[in-house]
Amino acid sequence: MVDIKKFFEPESIAVIGASRDPNKVGSAVMKNLIITFRGKIFPINPFVDELQGLKAYKSVTNVKERIDIAVIAVPAALVLNILRECEKAKVPLAVILSAGFNEIGGEGTKREDAIKKFLSKSKLRIIGPNCLGIINTDPNFNATFLDPNSKVMKGNAGFISQSGALLSAIVDDASTNNIGFSKIISIGNTTDISEADVIQAFKTDEKTKVLALYLEGLNNGSEFLKAGIEFSQEKPLLVLKGGKFKSASTAVSSHTGSMAGDYKAYELAFRRMGAISVDGVDDLFNFMRDSPNIKITSDEVIIATNAGGAGVITTDHLASSGLKLAKFSDKLLNELGKALPREANIHNPVDIVGDATPERYKDTLEILMQANKPIIILFSPQEMSQPLETAKQIYEVHQKHRDVPLLSVFLGGARVERARKFLLERNMPIYEYPNEAVSMVKGLFTYYSHRMQTFKMISREKSKYRDFKLKNDTFGMDAKKIFDSIGIKSANGVKLASVKEFPKAITAIGYPCVLKIEANTLAHKNKIGAVVVGIKNEKDMMNAFDGLSKIVKDQNIKKSAFGLYEDVNKFGENKLEILVGAHRDPQFGSMIALGLGGIFANEISDTTFLLSPISDQDIEELKTSKLGRIIGQVASESAFNELISYLLKLDKLMDSNKSIKDIDLNPIILFKDKLFATDFKIFV
Amino acid sequence: MVDIKKFFEPESIAVIGASRDPNKVGSAVMKNLIITFRGKIFPINPFVDELQGLKAYKSVTNVKERIDIAVIAVPAALVLNILRECEKAKVPLAVILSAGFNEIGGEGTKREDAIKKFLSKSKLRIIGPNCLGIINTDPNFNATFLDPNSKVMKGNAGFISQSGALLSAIVDDASTNNIGFSKIISIGNTTDISEADVIQAFKTDEKTKVLALYLEGLNNGSEFLKAGIEFSQEKPLLVLKGGKFKSASTAVSSHTGSMAGDYKAYELAFRRMGAISVDGVDDLFNFMRDSPNIKITSDEVIIATNAGGAGVITTDHLASSGLKLAKFSDKLLNELGKALPREANIHNPVDIVGDATPERYKDTLEILMQANKPIIILFSPQEMSQPLETAKQIYEVHQKHRDVPLLSVFLGGARVERARKFLLERNMPIYEYPNEAVSMVKGLFTYYSHRMQTFKMISREKSKYRDFKLKNDTFGMDAKKIFDSIGIKSANGVKLASVKEFPKAITAIGYPCVLKIEANTLAHKNKIGAVVVGIKNEKDMMNAFDGLSKIVKDQNIKKSAFGLYEDVNKFGENKLEILVGAHRDPQFGSMIALGLGGIFANEISDTTFLLSPISDQDIEELKTSKLGRIIGQVASESAFNELISYLLKLDKLMDSNKSIKDIDLNPIILFKDKLFATDFKIFV
Repeated sequence: MVDIKKFFEPESIAVIGASRDPNKVGSAVMKNLIITFRGKIFPINPFVDELQGLKAYKSVTNVKERIDIAVIAVPAALVLNILRECEKAKVPLAVILSAGFNEIGGEGTKREDAIKKFLSKSKLRIIGPNCLGIINTDPNFNATFLDPNSKVMKGNAGFISQSGALLSAIVDDASTNNIGFSKIISIGNTTDISEADVIQAFKTDEKTKVLALYLEGLNNGSEFLKAGIEFSQEKPLLVLKGGKFKSASTAVSSHTGSMAGDYKAYELAFRRMGAISVDGVDDLFNFMRDSPNIKITSDEVIIATNAGGAGVITTDHLASSGLKLAKFSDKLLNELGKALPREANIHNPVDIVGDATPERYKDTLEILMQANKPIIILFSPQEMSQPLETAKQIYEVHQKHRDVPLLSVFLGGARVERARKFLLERNMPIYEYPNEAVSMVKGLFTYYSHRMQTFKMISREKSKYRDFKLKNDTFGMDAKKIFDSIGIKSANGVKLASVKEFPKAITAIGYPCVLKIEANTLAHKNKIGAVVVGIKNEKDMMNAFDGLSKIVKDQNIKKSAFGLYEDVNKFGENKLEILVGAHRDPQFGSMIALGLGGIFANEISDTTFLLSPISDQDIEELKTSKLGRIIGQVASESAFNELISYLLKLDKLMDSNKSIKDIDLNPIILFKDKLFATDFKIFV
Repeated sequence: MVDIKKFFEPESIAVIGASRDPNKVGSAVMKNLIITFRGKIFPINPFVDELQGLKAYKSVTNVKERIDIAVIAVPAALVLNILRECEKAKVPLAVILSAGFNEIGGEGTKREDAIKKFLSKSKLRIIGPNCLGIINTDPNFNATFLDPNSKVMKGNAGFISQSGALLSAIVDDASTNNIGFSKIISIGNTTDISEADVIQAFKTDEKTKVLALYLEGLNNGSEFLKAGIEFSQEKPLLVLKGGKFKSASTAVSSHTGSMAGDYKAYELAFRRMGAISVDGVDDLFNFMRDSPNIKITSDEVIIATNAGGAGVITTDHLASSGLKLAKFSDKLLNELGKALPREANIHNPVDIVGDATPERYKDTLEILMQANKPIIILFSPQEMSQPLETAKQIYEVHQKHRDVPLLSVFLGGARVERARKFLLERNMPIYEYPNEAVSMVKGLFTYYSHRMQTFKMISREKSKYRDFKLKNDTFGMDAKKIFDSIGIKSANGVKLASVKEFPKAITAIGYPCVLKIEANTLAHKNKIGAVVVGIKNEKDMMNAFDGLSKIVKDQNIKKSAFGLYEDVNKFGENKLEILVGAHRDPQFGSMIALGLGGIFANEISDTTFLLSPISDQDIEELKTSKLGRIIGQVASESAFNELISYLLKLDKLMDSNKSIKDIDLNPIILFKDKLFATDFKIFV
């Protein structure tokens, strides 16, 4: 646990690598500190006695006073030695700006490993390396090498960035957009202090009302997840994820793994955390500014406008976000009817017509406030319009009904600028385009409704399964045995070493049946024709043996056998092919998949992934989803429940068998009252 | 055909309803004209002799000079008489600002009908009623009642708006964003001159390099489509559609119709036109400003950045838009390697590192220009960065390679403001956020690649089908006969009036078979259990008869019979249920649908719609789509082609039978080498 007070309210700072050369990082940090910091600054530079008007020291060990933070801006090769000196001088915290570590590989990685080793035996804690530094706005304190001309405004938003360069753009843009920060951390390579540590620290920071995070990757997903879940219970957590579509570097054998891709686990983790995942910097800014001030507890929205077209566009955005138009009570309609002119539309979206005066806005809003639903109020500057006066009336109404979320959209440019500024300065949510308001309502509704839910994790309730200690990919009958042992029902089958074992086997399996080549080197049987279906009699079977034997020989398949399975298609007509699978994400652990199988598996993107451990809420959502409705058209409730129990079983299997990376059960043949897995793959 | 010159370069204008009262529309129009118009203005007002310093006339008939345009701003009830006077005075064109027509229904509709009738016998042409007016910027001429303080900048973009209120917001916002207009038309109720007329006129207007359209609905889709197709061959056409998600006012019986919804036909029409469909006003502005200046002929994009994070985010946007990262040749990589520092990433997205100087930007761009692909150049303001100098270098390179699309994104706020302005003033595409640049490349690539294609309409090549002159919804065997007659293959079946006819019928059909209740009042048989499947013998059949007879009686189904069909499931295991359908859109004519059928029809949203007439390009795209790949896993090429021939047949059937509104063939059972329609519905 990081003590945020110590980090952000230091009384003394040493700058190691403080420099006169304006092109050096150490010079910018000094400048920023001199401008912002009221505590003591100790420039450390072995070659000078004085720097920017301050006495300089050869080493931290020469400073005879307490040092709360050491900011390090020396070449990478020197950093380890500097850290040793910091330890000697009892500095508790170091912020390493220097680059040239893990991010460049080779020598850099060695350097970072050495630091890690050193830290494991030291009380010293570090941020970075390869970061831009840290900022507090109250009390003021800028220990970064941001351009000293950059303005960082004081405000409610904490910000953690994995990209220093992006951070500097965001800080610049934010001050132009009137967005203030509580504290900023450029997190760097997270050799020691991680995103999770900082998120935890921000949770108890009173100055921070919302936390924004720019994320590209993670070293420890489960800690991050835990910290995020806890943070979201207190305040909104915003995530902008870079690298959503980074193509997988290695080829993925399993269906489930390839469908999951790189970003899926992050997406699931953000959802479980209740984080608000934003698409771009503009969205991020809106949420940083407004999310502490608005509470959205309903997805039924009221729109009022003086321009029909704007109402229409906003309604479109609403619908495509999955939000609804609120329905009005008769009483409300009645009151609106009395208050508004005949040409007005009193139904949602309410059109108060182009000649709407500020008073008409006020009267309308006063009536709409009764519904106690989020209101998006639209203003389009028309000939008779009075933008500033209208803004004032909106503000007046808001003052009287502070609990009702009221989001304003003032369309237009110069004519509405003062009106926008008026509302902005009073911390009211005000936007230029309707989609911004809709996106805000959607994000905050999702956030607040997530906070209201309690998640019961159901998949890990019972004892663990056995660890099968698999060392190789396992397919066919060998894999089937594992699934059998945990109660996943599958087509009857036996393994045949040769054709001689067939007569005995067929008495157990019966016709029609299916014959497959089985070998743990053979992941994709269908591709080489290693499966013969529709075997109805002995003659078919002998042909199948001959054909498959030839394939084994031609393709030189090692350690192969035959799998003889009953053809479960005999059980009925009305059936559905389902895929059930699992994938282990390096950061967030296993994800369990349910989707359409067989020929659909590659093409239909509606496969649902559940992050382990699976919650009752996950199952509920799954059942009412599109996929759930398709399955429900074929399966009885008991068959559906059995299918769902398989998801929980796979979750538990992944949990008990850490060597398993992926599982494909594809297809599972689902009938009204029964289901059978018919193909079995485990990848390690 | 509208003569745009006459409309936009008048020499004299009469303002009928010119007024002294500053709260009246007629006053604002007068003010706007006096400020902007250099020709003659004739105020028409029976009660005054002089208005805003100009001689006023009692009627247009009193003006003894030629009047090119009459702008009408009198109460709705007076408009028809005024038009008669205009005709008498030989005014060729009138712009009717007055509201109170079709848009209010009742009395208003009667007034508009009367005007329509009058116009049918007159040479007079009108814009409106219920519009804001029209604007030209060169020569200058503002005949609207926009706030006279509003600034309308001169520029390349034509603009047609169906919403006057939204227009005023857009004009205000545009001038703030430095967006200029060539001509603006508030189109109003389109009693006479339609969107199609104006689009046609804009096509030949040299001042207009791009045309933007705000659209909510249409009166004549096919004319609009034709005008749009022709326009797009010349210049970019931008469409912002309001009311995408308007819920259908009447319940829709057919699957196909309900899946099509309200917006689908517009979406298909925009695509056929090659229009750029934008999602919001901000996107609209970017395209208005930049689309005349950029030509994108490749979907392989180069990204270069001084901030890794920004490159990552841009790559994400690229991927989610379906664009690709360009691959570099060895020669190019080699040159980049020589020009850039060791820490740089020379692969796409190229990272020229945080300390990049303006010169490094220039050198990098010079090398990248060789690839002749669209380039998105990102700038993040970091400590050493020189925004304005960098912008200048970017401009220099662009000057030397004007054919290579070069889109700049300068992240940040105040620090990059001057740089942005520098590029903006030089008509270079410059954005604040990466997604804007990506959206521009995507939109323009789609536009230009559409222009390059020639569409061969294949579905109407042969002679028409017979018109069956259907007056009622037609289902089951009656509908099957129609499909049989046009060569759509279906399950064998016979119609039985009673159980007595069964023995003869079964010799023709054979077991297994399916028995259904058939009645043209019964659209959704499955809902009431009016279908019995899996009939294997006489006993099954008798039970089925009894059960269905009871349903007929209990539900009081009129004019019912039984349909006895062969059970095509007997033809094999490996099958796919397909939906083929058609829907007639009131604006754009018929759309033909292909999707997954049976239990999937309601839930899988991947149903593809093709706008009639179907082109070879449509079929090509369909075959390589997700849906096409799923079908291809089951069907042989010849079966797939037969399925596609059914789409063309339905297109022709819809064309020959205008009384048909919807068709559902759901499911068609598709096997490897054959397919059978098994359920037949025609809605009129």
